[in-house]
Amino acid sequence: MKPKIETCLSPALLHLYDVSDSIVVIIDVLRATSTISAALYNGAKYIIPVAKVDECIQLGMELNAITAGERDGQIAPGLQYGNSPQDYPRSFIENKILVLTTTNGTKLLHMSLQQNAKEIITGSFANLNSTVKYLKSSGKNILLGCSAWKDKFNLEDTLFAGAVVEQLKDDFIVDCDASKMAQALFDDTKGNIFAYMQKKAANHYKRLMGFDLETDLNFCLEYNKADCLVIYKDGKLVKGSF
Amino acid sequence: MKPKIETCLSPALLHLYDVSDSIVVIIDVLRATSTISAALYNGAKYIIPVAKVDECIQLGMELNAITAGERDGQIAPGLQYGNSPQDYPRSFIENKILVLTTTNGTKLLHMSLQQNAKEIITGSFANLNSTVKYLKSSGKNILLGCSAWKDKFNLEDTLFAGAVVEQLKDDFIVDCDASKMAQALFDDTKGNIFAYMQKKAANHYKRLMGFDLETDLNFCLEYNKADCLVIYKDGKLVKGSF
Repeated sequence: MKPKIETCLSPALLHLYDVSDSIVVIIDVLRATSTISAALYNGAKYIIPVAKVDECIQLGMELNAITAGERDGQIAPGLQYGNSPQDYPRSFIENKILVLTTTNGTKLLHMSLQQNAKEIITGSFANLNSTVKYLKSSGKNILLGCSAWKDKFNLEDTLFAGAVVEQLKDDFIVDCDASKMAQALFDDTKGNIFAYMQKKAANHYKRLMGFDLETDLNFCLEYNKADCLVIYKDGKLVKGSF
Repeated sequence: MKPKIETCLSPALLHLYDVSDSIVVIIDVLRATSTISAALYNGAKYIIPVAKVDECIQLGMELNAITAGERDGQIAPGLQYGNSPQDYPRSFIENKILVLTTTNGTKLLHMSLQQNAKEIITGSFANLNSTVKYLKSSGKNILLGCSAWKDKFNLEDTLFAGAVVEQLKDDFIVDCDASKMAQALFDDTKGNIFAYMQKKAANHYKRLMGFDLETDLNFCLEYNKADCLVIYKDGKLVKGSF
């Protein structure tokens, strides 16, 4: 029997899914998982995702690492860098350790751990290809986990889930309405995510535009700009090979 | 300033919305709110929605009322009738009281009450016109509340939310991603909900088809088959006028 693919639209719904036998894909397109992809693609040694700002500062000192993170879309006080993929070019991040805290993505990752997820990876349009290839080759059940915005549904994470379902639908059982909706929504974009988000004036798109972050949005809503597999292992996000 | 329209995709997300200043529209297309509409349209005196089966039996005896309800899509043991709109033709239900308990819709209604909803109405494709007209004339904030399936997202309730957003978008502020998604999804149906549900093989559609309830599905997925306004007032669902 084929493995199944399901989509969870908000961390507040995660408890409805048994993830003990699934790969959970943490999706936080604007911008945590796009930035994670960029940093690892550009040679970061590894990334430690933490829940709280003070934990981030403490661990940064212990490991002599870069500390970064945002709250409500702005650099959190006490941290060095923000949550922009552009903050992490190779010239800066190569061979460095990054300790990162974000509003929604980190939270979902830790919740998945608590629910004993069999395996955790992170996904974004920046690493769509590698994510899809890995999931396809795994033969395991998949839960696409949208980080949402303070638990409220968002378009960008759902569109990414839809892009994954679109590419995996022949090899997996797609029997959940959320996955079907995500796929229909992705089809509706005709492949141009940026234009779609602009047209729909999605909430977080507008928020970031308000912070003058159009270049970030371009990066996060294009395909495969930092294409590598991102796996969570022993508390660290690392570039995976397969 | 225009009032706003938001969409809540699951009872498990209701706590994220302040409904104290909103009309909450309880949506449970398959089949609670369609059946409620049918019974009131056909002359039922009023309907009392209750959470539990034993409460339904007790109240039915006290009021000499019809008791009805389902659990997991089947007539609940101890009750007289199920949750099919066809069970309530005028010849049977006129001037009678109905005590009804359902899996998802009743639950969301009681949660909305606990969260001090300003006003509660119920909506379904069967009473789309009246629902939209009333909401438009109200000038109040709206929360479209999808009953979902055991808290999991479903297509049919979201499609109804989308149909409402589509008709109200010029008179309300639509600034929530869930409403935008619902509208895009509804647009995708090209107006034929039944065909769309069939094509997508939506979860609850398949479940009811398995129970041989195609006629029910036809009723519930067509427009304005029992077009009346349904308002919740003092513990009762009644046919409203405006």
